[in-house]
Amino acid sequence: MISSYLKEEIDLRISRISALLAEMGCDAMLVTSNVNLFYTSGRVFSGYTYITKEGEVKYFVKRPVGLQGDNVKYIRKPEQIAELLEAKPQKIALELDSLTVNDYTRLSKVFADSEKCDASGILRRCRAVKTAYEIEKMKESGVGHDEAYKHIREIYREGMTDMELQVEVERQLRLQGSLGIFRIHGESMEIFMGNVLCGDNADAPSPYDFAMGGAGLHESLPVGCNGTVIEPGMTVMVDMCGNFNGYMTDMTRVFYVGKLDETAKKAHELSMAIHHRLMEEGKPGVAASRLYEIAMEMTKEAGLEAYFMGHKQQAGYIGHGVGIEVNESPVLAPRSRDVLEAGNIIALEPKYVIPGVGAVGVESTYVVTETGLECVTNYPEEIAEL
Amino acid sequence: MISSYLKEEIDLRISRISALLAEMGCDAMLVTSNVNLFYTSGRVFSGYTYITKEGEVKYFVKRPVGLQGDNVKYIRKPEQIAELLEAKPQKIALELDSLTVNDYTRLSKVFADSEKCDASGILRRCRAVKTAYEIEKMKESGVGHDEAYKHIREIYREGMTDMELQVEVERQLRLQGSLGIFRIHGESMEIFMGNVLCGDNADAPSPYDFAMGGAGLHESLPVGCNGTVIEPGMTVMVDMCGNFNGYMTDMTRVFYVGKLDETAKKAHELSMAIHHRLMEEGKPGVAASRLYEIAMEMTKEAGLEAYFMGHKQQAGYIGHGVGIEVNESPVLAPRSRDVLEAGNIIALEPKYVIPGVGAVGVESTYVVTETGLECVTNYPEEIAEL
Repeated sequence: MISSYLKEEIDLRISRISALLAEMGCDAMLVTSNVNLFYTSGRVFSGYTYITKEGEVKYFVKRPVGLQGDNVKYIRKPEQIAELLEAKPQKIALELDSLTVNDYTRLSKVFADSEKCDASGILRRCRAVKTAYEIEKMKESGVGHDEAYKHIREIYREGMTDMELQVEVERQLRLQGSLGIFRIHGESMEIFMGNVLCGDNADAPSPYDFAMGGAGLHESLPVGCNGTVIEPGMTVMVDMCGNFNGYMTDMTRVFYVGKLDETAKKAHELSMAIHHRLMEEGKPGVAASRLYEIAMEMTKEAGLEAYFMGHKQQAGYIGHGVGIEVNESPVLAPRSRDVLEAGNIIALEPKYVIPGVGAVGVESTYVVTETGLECVTNYPEEIAEL
Repeated sequence: MISSYLKEEIDLRISRISALLAEMGCDAMLVTSNVNLFYTSGRVFSGYTYITKEGEVKYFVKRPVGLQGDNVKYIRKPEQIAELLEAKPQKIALELDSLTVNDYTRLSKVFADSEKCDASGILRRCRAVKTAYEIEKMKESGVGHDEAYKHIREIYREGMTDMELQVEVERQLRLQGSLGIFRIHGESMEIFMGNVLCGDNADAPSPYDFAMGGAGLHESLPVGCNGTVIEPGMTVMVDMCGNFNGYMTDMTRVFYVGKLDETAKKAHELSMAIHHRLMEEGKPGVAASRLYEIAMEMTKEAGLEAYFMGHKQQAGYIGHGVGIEVNESPVLAPRSRDVLEAGNIIALEPKYVIPGVGAVGVESTYVVTETGLECVTNYPEEIAEL
């Protein structure tokens, strides 16, 4: 073991991966990304996890110095892996969804005689179904996240900008022990610790595929708060991530200043109603797309579809898996082929953007259980006055 | 123009890229990474910048909606690029150092008849030599960075942990307008906004290739502060990044509590002396490796090589280019083949780890000019009592 994780936990993950390797007719997998090195070892290191379809695991470590374990081999460069393996795999899975072309080219030569296939799908599938241990970690993260949100109303001062409020929420999260880092799959997705969106800035289209946009403070990171002064009549959406132990929770709560617009109030209540309905509907065996459909049907019934998931630019999903990264499987979108499984952890975020007012709607993180969705982010859902 | 940048600035960058394309016998480049989309357009968007060796540029945009310009073409998927180009390139440069294998495979089909080559080196070379505009942006970022550091001594309270101090420094940076996000080239490099390292935690080896380590708060991000209570006799190294406009400055300053250890004092003064010497030596035409050699010679003369760039695990460089990312060219390492050019911007960080005390040494960001290095991070270098 090269981490503080229980051996049983790592063994369980490795056994799932090796079963899928065997199913794909693949002899071995070489894990290369930090998130999957963490998943397969319990820690981030510089190097590679090598897993065979028989369930053997080896850690080829470049840094840090000093890791212990029978299955730890120190290397300086990937070419040494080939020398250290007793048997060469006929077919090897590599992370084609995250490996760069140049790194892949180098590793291809290390496994010159092996057929290559994609490890990304296997790892995505394994990680989508959380172990009991991972569910505990998500709950732990949810508690820290809740604690930080409890300070939002006391932080607010009249005349504050969205940015000033966000900085204080970030500070509360960090003081609770958040690691700060926001891990997202896909190089084109970027964000800092989350977003605070006030008034019409919520409707500013963003290049990123997040549920909501925001102009951002600078064109080099065009998402989120933009310096809007929080004024009466606006809603204030706080959508930050919690990451207290490598597992991220996603939670959005909304506040308002002065008088709350009627349509905004109605839309926020609709979002809460969708959550409550989906908590019952979201069971193993249900299509992820079905949850999207229900949210859309309820939205259409209320006549709010023009505001659903944005106004000028609309996002095409209402939720996503979360875990080590914020965009895991399953995806709750109309054309998603994912089917819910017990142990999935999903963030549900049916949201609305009301022009002239701002964004409303709840986002919470849930575990899929046999009896429905169990919430791990429990700060009150109601829209509250700041 | 799809950003607030001056057309002349973007034209200058595009002309440099197209000249290098022509030099390589390459007809065009397709830019895909956020950092290089920002470099070639002045903003981040979801899509592609297409540049020909004749200096023409087109922006193929997926998101956000609403970007204007003669050379903006909206697309839903990369396959449309081929349809929209009048002439197909015989040879096209793609970012092989950041494109994932799966994205590359897809783009390869879009340019099925074109020979492929690597765009990464061209872009790295262009970005290493900053324009006058970029130098101004770095100076702007340096001013915000300095302002935040001015609060460090007033933030400190007896009994604080390294984490508590770091959170307050982060807050100051954010209140000054830092965008927070830390851009690093290479998927295996991760960090939040920077590091505060106290006492022996500075000597904890990290998996990442940063100058200093630190155990971190969790095995999922094993770098930086680890909850050490700041106590008399320790040094406190504050190494945070400034990023106020898409351009990052890197600055380390060191403080101490109680009595300052004599070796630590000597090593910090040596670091300052190395900076002053290299400010004179660092001119266009000088080998980057030469700066490393000078630092090593001065360190050996002082008998401090056992502590140089770490103690248990030592980093193999004393500085690096900075700009949109924190690890640009040139690299100041023994085997670096980089030669300094006017307009390079480098962070110099000769540092020492003294067992039982902590890390010392200055890091500042400099512009390479004809007369030597010009500093853009001007908070006082001296080690100061907290």
